[in-house]
Amino acid sequence: MKRAIGFIDSGVGGLTVVKEVLKQLPHEQIYYLGDTARCPYGPRDREEVHKFTWEMTNFLVERNIKMLVIACNTATAAALKDIRAKLDIPVIGVIQPGSRAALKASRNNKIGILGTIGTVQSMAYPAALKTLNRHVEVDSLACPKFVSIVESGEYKSAIAKKVVAESLLPLKSTKIDTLILGCTHYPLLKPLIENFMGEGVAVINSGEETASEVSALLDYHNLLDATEESVQHRFFTTGSVPIFRSIAADWLSMPEMEIEHIELGEGK
Amino acid sequence: MKRAIGFIDSGVGGLTVVKEVLKQLPHEQIYYLGDTARCPYGPRDREEVHKFTWEMTNFLVERNIKMLVIACNTATAAALKDIRAKLDIPVIGVIQPGSRAALKASRNNKIGILGTIGTVQSMAYPAALKTLNRHVEVDSLACPKFVSIVESGEYKSAIAKKVVAESLLPLKSTKIDTLILGCTHYPLLKPLIENFMGEGVAVINSGEETASEVSALLDYHNLLDATEESVQHRFFTTGSVPIFRSIAADWLSMPEMEIEHIELGEGK
Repeated sequence: MKRAIGFIDSGVGGLTVVKEVLKQLPHEQIYYLGDTARCPYGPRDREEVHKFTWEMTNFLVERNIKMLVIACNTATAAALKDIRAKLDIPVIGVIQPGSRAALKASRNNKIGILGTIGTVQSMAYPAALKTLNRHVEVDSLACPKFVSIVESGEYKSAIAKKVVAESLLPLKSTKIDTLILGCTHYPLLKPLIENFMGEGVAVINSGEETASEVSALLDYHNLLDATEESVQHRFFTTGSVPIFRSIAADWLSMPEMEIEHIELGEGK
Repeated sequence: MKRAIGFIDSGVGGLTVVKEVLKQLPHEQIYYLGDTARCPYGPRDREEVHKFTWEMTNFLVERNIKMLVIACNTATAAALKDIRAKLDIPVIGVIQPGSRAALKASRNNKIGILGTIGTVQSMAYPAALKTLNRHVEVDSLACPKFVSIVESGEYKSAIAKKVVAESLLPLKSTKIDTLILGCTHYPLLKPLIENFMGEGVAVINSGEETASEVSALLDYHNLLDATEESVQHRFFTTGSVPIFRSIAADWLSMPEMEIEHIELGEGK
């Protein structure tokens, strides 16, 4: 049986990364776990996020995944290093690919970052950007309302438009020419964010670059699999299956999806 | 002292990859070896290319490089697997990144490949493309005259224009929408190639995607280095230093370069 690539996220956000991986690697099998019941991770303290991220990781590792993508910026900031050091499969996060994509797009090396409170406080993006180019200037902004808007399915609504405009106002007076969507939920708000920021600012969804890294690392470890063996994607959520299904079906254009409710941690 | 990223090529072609790496990782140190005296590799048999590639590899490994980029498609096809298996530093080639970039660009999955005789005969590109997407259709074309035009510095001349037009004619009747420059020398001819193929065909220089893979793998192995320690790039050629310098200075916009003549193999 094909071994799957595992994806974990606090909810549906990581599906924005899955979408890009399926585009670049159409024959790979995906296992996805969204911890919707405990979403959002952003306001939680680092230790708790670290613990939750390990619970998700263990759930998928038990299902024999061949690679793990921590498709959540908050979880990447809290746990990537530790999980990478302890697992014997390749493990990647979304912060390094997002940083790489932003530096490729920027011409003035002034980069903005939108993230959850946890991601912004971790300073993981400024650190990652500076390991690539130490001359970069960074403006970070926490957008605590965005994840809930996406998880509730309201990401195309008038309320979403208003919240985006109010939240991003502080960035309008900066000189950034590139803006990282430093949370995998935010690409669902990308049209609204691009519209508000205007043409002078490139808005970066780290999904495409993360998918390239998945592809490169699978190749590096001889784990690519485009054989004709049948593929059966599986999606797991700790929250509501119908809500997960409606967002996932819309975003992935996948009419039939196998989605299972599971319990993690105390609720297990 | 900073450890360098090593690049090897049959001549100056790999500089097209170096250019992209310096853009994405401006503080990294580069060691580059071009085996100009034995260029072109394209018409040589696989065993000989394999031997020459190991000679270049050993020269740079002795200089304590932290990663090796086989920035030559012919050498990648002949020796990547073996070198990767035997060295304890990360080793990458240019065929997988080129394939990845092409599949990202293509809409109809009909992809053309230009390469040396050695690269085309190896079937390495069709194999790499099919490990990513088995539905891709491939048209390969050997362009044996291109490397010599580039190495002689004639890549902007009227002769170059004529040779490009004559060589690419067979591709005009295909349905490809994407064309991989499957030799690192060819990006110097890219303006002429794009002009001849017309707007409907995306021409892929694998340099940018290779640079992203360099960055991703250095991060994965904790080898990124953007510290302020001074950087001293070094370029080695088995051929003429002045000719190497004129092409490298033009292509890299690097006015002062440390270029050394060295001997490999029998001539050593």
